[in-house]
Amino acid sequence: MKDTAKDFPLIAIILAAGKGTRFKSEKPKVLHKILGKPMIWYVKYAVSWIKPDEIVFVVGHKKEEVIKELNCDGCKFVYQEQQLGTGHAVLTAREYFKDFDGYVLIINGDTPLIGGETLKNAREYFKALIRYEGANLETYKGYRNKSIAGVMITARVPNPYGYGRVIKDGSHRVIKIVEEKDATPQEKNIKEVNSGIYLFYAPYLYDALEKLENNNAQKEYYLTDVIEILRQEEKYVYALEIPDYTEILNVNDRLQLAGVENILKQRYITFWALNGTTFHQPESTWIEFDVNLSRDVEIYQNCFLSGETSIDEGTIIEPNCIIKKSKIGKNVKILANSYIEDSVIEDNAIIGPFARIRNNAVIKESAVIGNFVEVKNSIIGERTNARHLSYLGDAEIGKDVNIGAGTITCNYDGFRKHKTIIKDRAFIGSDTMLVAPIVIGEEAITGSGSVITKDVPDKALAIERSQQKIIENYAEKRKKKVMENESS
Amino acid sequence: MKDTAKDFPLIAIILAAGKGTRFKSEKPKVLHKILGKPMIWYVKYAVSWIKPDEIVFVVGHKKEEVIKELNCDGCKFVYQEQQLGTGHAVLTAREYFKDFDGYVLIINGDTPLIGGETLKNAREYFKALIRYEGANLETYKGYRNKSIAGVMITARVPNPYGYGRVIKDGSHRVIKIVEEKDATPQEKNIKEVNSGIYLFYAPYLYDALEKLENNNAQKEYYLTDVIEILRQEEKYVYALEIPDYTEILNVNDRLQLAGVENILKQRYITFWALNGTTFHQPESTWIEFDVNLSRDVEIYQNCFLSGETSIDEGTIIEPNCIIKKSKIGKNVKILANSYIEDSVIEDNAIIGPFARIRNNAVIKESAVIGNFVEVKNSIIGERTNARHLSYLGDAEIGKDVNIGAGTITCNYDGFRKHKTIIKDRAFIGSDTMLVAPIVIGEEAITGSGSVITKDVPDKALAIERSQQKIIENYAEKRKKKVMENESS
Amino acid sequence: MKDTAKDFPLIAIILAAGKGTRFKSEKPKVLHKILGKPMIWYVKYAVSWIKPDEIVFVVGHKKEEVIKELNCDGCKFVYQEQQLGTGHAVLTAREYFKDFDGYVLIINGDTPLIGGETLKNAREYFKALIRYEGANLETYKGYRNKSIAGVMITARVPNPYGYGRVIKDGSHRVIKIVEEKDATPQEKNIKEVNSGIYLFYAPYLYDALEKLENNNAQKEYYLTDVIEILRQEEKYVYALEIPDYTEILNVNDRLQLAGVENILKQRYITFWALNGTTFHQPESTWIEFDVNLSRDVEIYQNCFLSGETSIDEGTIIEPNCIIKKSKIGKNVKILANSYIEDSVIEDNAIIGPFARIRNNAVIKESAVIGNFVEVKNSIIGERTNARHLSYLGDAEIGKDVNIGAGTITCNYDGFRKHKTIIKDRAFIGSDTMLVAPIVIGEEAITGSGSVITKDVPDKALAIERSQQKIIENYAEKRKKKVMENESS
Repeated sequence: MKDTAKDFPLIAIILAAGKGTRFKSEKPKVLHKILGKPMIWYVKYAVSWIKPDEIVFVVGHKKEEVIKELNCDGCKFVYQEQQLGTGHAVLTAREYFKDFDGYVLIINGDTPLIGGETLKNAREYFKALIRYEGANLETYKGYRNKSIAGVMITARVPNPYGYGRVIKDGSHRVIKIVEEKDATPQEKNIKEVNSGIYLFYAPYLYDALEKLENNNAQKEYYLTDVIEILRQEEKYVYALEIPDYTEILNVNDRLQLAGVENILKQRYITFWALNGTTFHQPESTWIEFDVNLSRDVEIYQNCFLSGETSIDEGTIIEPNCIIKKSKIGKNVKILANSYIEDSVIEDNAIIGPFARIRNNAVIKESAVIGNFVEVKNSIIGERTNARHLSYLGDAEIGKDVNIGAGTITCNYDGFRKHKTIIKDRAFIGSDTMLVAPIVIGEEAITGSGSVITKDVPDKALAIERSQQKIIENYAEKRKKKVMENESS
Repeated sequence: MKDTAKDFPLIAIILAAGKGTRFKSEKPKVLHKILGKPMIWYVKYAVSWIKPDEIVFVVGHKKEEVIKELNCDGCKFVYQEQQLGTGHAVLTAREYFKDFDGYVLIINGDTPLIGGETLKNAREYFKALIRYEGANLETYKGYRNKSIAGVMITARVPNPYGYGRVIKDGSHRVIKIVEEKDATPQEKNIKEVNSGIYLFYAPYLYDALEKLENNNAQKEYYLTDVIEILRQEEKYVYALEIPDYTEILNVNDRLQLAGVENILKQRYITFWALNGTTFHQPESTWIEFDVNLSRDVEIYQNCFLSGETSIDEGTIIEPNCIIKKSKIGKNVKILANSYIEDSVIEDNAIIGPFARIRNNAVIKESAVIGNFVEVKNSIIGERTNARHLSYLGDAEIGKDVNIGAGTITCNYDGFRKHKTIIKDRAFIGSDTMLVAPIVIGEEAITGSGSVITKDVPDKALAIERSQQKIIENYAEKRKKKVMENESS
Repeated sequence: MKDTAKDFPLIAIILAAGKGTRFKSEKPKVLHKILGKPMIWYVKYAVSWIKPDEIVFVVGHKKEEVIKELNCDGCKFVYQEQQLGTGHAVLTAREYFKDFDGYVLIINGDTPLIGGETLKNAREYFKALIRYEGANLETYKGYRNKSIAGVMITARVPNPYGYGRVIKDGSHRVIKIVEEKDATPQEKNIKEVNSGIYLFYAPYLYDALEKLENNNAQKEYYLTDVIEILRQEEKYVYALEIPDYTEILNVNDRLQLAGVENILKQRYITFWALNGTTFHQPESTWIEFDVNLSRDVEIYQNCFLSGETSIDEGTIIEPNCIIKKSKIGKNVKILANSYIEDSVIEDNAIIGPFARIRNNAVIKESAVIGNFVEVKNSIIGERTNARHLSYLGDAEIGKDVNIGAGTITCNYDGFRKHKTIIKDRAFIGSDTMLVAPIVIGEEAITGSGSVITKDVPDKALAIERSQQKIIENYAEKRKKKVMENESS
């Protein structure tokens, strides 16, 4: 991550101290999940695109949880004990930029839709401004009388209510940010708003932060005041207005969380659709960051694809399938209402409907796993069929095996799990209980309804069964008996 | 319900006589359901907020069905035999307000989104108008030369087509209502429309209704004509424009029914989301009036929550779950595609995927009910597992029991249902048939594939099984036999 | 199809040669499916409404696949080897209209939302124009100095970006079509765009096509240039602007495919809703062209209805059901998460939840098929119940039969499928294996857990079972044994 353009040394400060009161949650705000990942993960991911020398998180509320969930070796954390405003939050990280002759990116942990490309653009804009001013980045270092103090990302939002409005001069320089409550009616009509994302030249930022005051109603130190302080010194923050306002949406409650989640999902779907995947009713599809799709994959309504899941060419997924952390091969058919987790499905297999495949199961090429069948931690060989009502757990099943309806691997004895091995071309009769550990030989056959407790040699029939008895006219006897019980 | 402010005696008339031709239905219009309740239920619920002294339903088409479905002890019903217009409908209820020195609320049974709060506001507005006029409510009684005849709820709709447009004077007094077909082009541009919801001072209303004529193309008595009649007597109806126009949407066909259902659903979701529940893809969630959710509940896409269902803190519900009239505890996990009805799931239980739990089942703390398992009218004890392919009906199962895959309680003998009792720490082998009535003792064990017909003592093993036989080289014999059959 | 109004002889040319590069697909663009049918099927269907004398498809990319998929006996196909523009494509079909004294409809194969009614309107408009000009259709034949050369369908689209803008004179005559890249800023503001759908008087079209040149950047022959060529000869193409712009949307990538699919679905839903079917969350319902619904059918969220499926009055379908090519009777209840394919469900049956019914199954009146039950190629008699965890394949089951939980028809012996016959009022105990071919007599009973291999006479009980043995204090022995194994 550390190959920042040498001419733009950068540290990033991600503000993640807030409680998120409107979430009404035990969990700190930035840990609320969007498409399976904490909100702040997306911010960190975007920030990593511009390869800062250091990423510093300002944490506060339930900081241990935040640090743990971020699970980030190289990251730095500073603790903001009291929430005294954004300016104060940034100052909490002062040790990282006080004597730093470079740049500081400041971003809130609750703007998960920001694009890494957009942050890059902001950096390039900053560099271009410096060049335009006649300076070059090298000479700019340590040379403090230049006028470019920072770049601030802005966007025009359809409904700016609640956002800080951006007041600019004719040269894209920000004059001030006006908060909702302080805005005049005219100012309220301004649709260009503050994203809360800034790049500052570090020495200027530090000096200005030192001058911040909290003489306002909330007694908070506002980062936005820095802009006016700098301006008085003829140092300017430039607004970079970005075209897609959704990138700067921040998330303050669970309705906004859902809104942002839907936008992000739509981005992924757009990406994959234009890459060659057909989505039917795409707005109903759940798809996460780590999912990989291929050409001519077809995904029907209301599927849920999560974690590191890949789906290869020509595969069709019927409605209502859940696929988590699994690898699906080519030309696979996954029929409706199936649930696949932590497993591998190889080419041309047919799965479902109502199949559950989990816990490192491997379904080999052209195998068929049918309805009401659960496969757990098992290998199912090529062209093997298990079409109905079975439980296959901790099993190793060969090729061309037929698993009859109602087959169960009795893998658990109450103490531990045992393994079932079924060799190629075996034929397991319906309702066979395979009491593990057990080995069924090649081409071996088990009789329907048998409990198989001992290994079966190749080609042998194993059967556990009594004689079928017939009791004539039982229907009437039974009725009579029931009636007697009734009257007794 | 009868604590109406003494100064505002009120009866409510709900118009529910219409057939709803455009529904093309056997069922009367107001009984078509929205989120599980008949449309008219919502109107009655809103009306009950202002606690009228009497609620009178004007019924007509299939009146018995309407009366039965409303199932309302205190309610009054009057019968409008012929549909001769809204004015006529109100007159049908004349006995209730002819000699009533109070107020009358008139509302259509097909405006289910109206808020109780809005009706309260209309009442308060009426009272404020009276006060403003210099009268007070007490003296207003019986004092008939005042000018305030009524309040009418209006709203600005984005597309007013088909609605009656409201023509007002400068003092919010309604001059007249212009129907679509009579509107001039200018009038058609008016977006403020008639909700069909009015509060009238009863004596004025009655007098005006008596003067209504039906000299129009439809030969109907229009309630809206009352406004002009009163105006001629210098008595005025005031428009109260409400901000959320969806409250006045009326439902005339099944597309509108779906539209209104979605709006109502969205209101409930907004409420619960702001209260601390996370919805993923909230637009896909079904949630009814009687559902109660808690903080940090997480509901994935396409769930269906109906009836008196409550879900406690920290519980996660995966996609496609159906939960009807059930109580779900804390930190429960309900995996995808599960169906729970009339049951209780206690804290920390894990349910599904593909579980069906119904008919007063109780799943105790930390129990696990897995895939393709049905639990009916049974108690499943703490930490008990039934993970695969089982039917547990009319059973009472203790703690720490292991129910093997394929276990079935044979509760039905063709005549009646019998009970299965399984005591703590029993281990039920796979594919055990428990022929009820039966008792399995504590720590007892049953052998896989056994049909258990007699009670099993504590700690005993019960097994019903023959010897496993092996017939060598059967595979080839079998093939030969089949071929012989073929050629024969 | 060949009863074209005699006064308007017509051939239709459907352009279907394109590859659809932006689909990134192995499949040619026009074969990508919308609601279960290839895009081009809808174009052909609309074209068939105006009953042309001939339908000619211009095919190119993977023409064999297109021809095969269209599977159209009467259709003609011409092969456009190189893609040299729309004008060139039409010329490829010259043999069909070179000496044709009639009219030519030209339409793209990627505008699947066009209505047949709209094409009829275009024809009628053409005829009206001719009459208005003083000619009559009969005399128009062979009479080449008339001025009406063609009719072109246009519509105003909200976002015309990328479409050819229509420049007209004051008499609805098209002056020219301006493509995006050639449009002036003013022209870009024009929202009326070219649909690519034209009716031409064939002799004029042919003459103009002969004069087309490809002196443009792409070196292509543009059909739109025909309009200007004709105009120079004082022959005019008239614009017919249609009100619903969605009809002319064309599909160039998979996002547009999904968009068009949703619009079409919404049309079907609107149609059926206004015809008396209730949809809950209609936007989540999948419904195809061949589906037929009745009054008072109620369809809950996220159902998937495909192929020739009909659903009769009063039937309720809970969420997440898949129904393909099946016939559902009256007052049926299909509970959530069921999957029905190629089958018949008769009146008052109850199906699901989690039922799978397939392969020509017939569920007779008032039968009940419950959870985790698969019925394949079987007849289930009136009032027969199979409520739990069963597989019924290749079976013929009579009336009033009770199928116990866990019943399996062992229909497959590894070589072929055999039939199971169960007669009226039989009682099949839980976990019965019915080894086919087999016949269970009327009122016969099978014992739980029995493997039935021989026919059972009427009223008899068949049972295959050993004695239940009890081994006291086994629990401890077992634990000891396990521990010994551990330590050994």
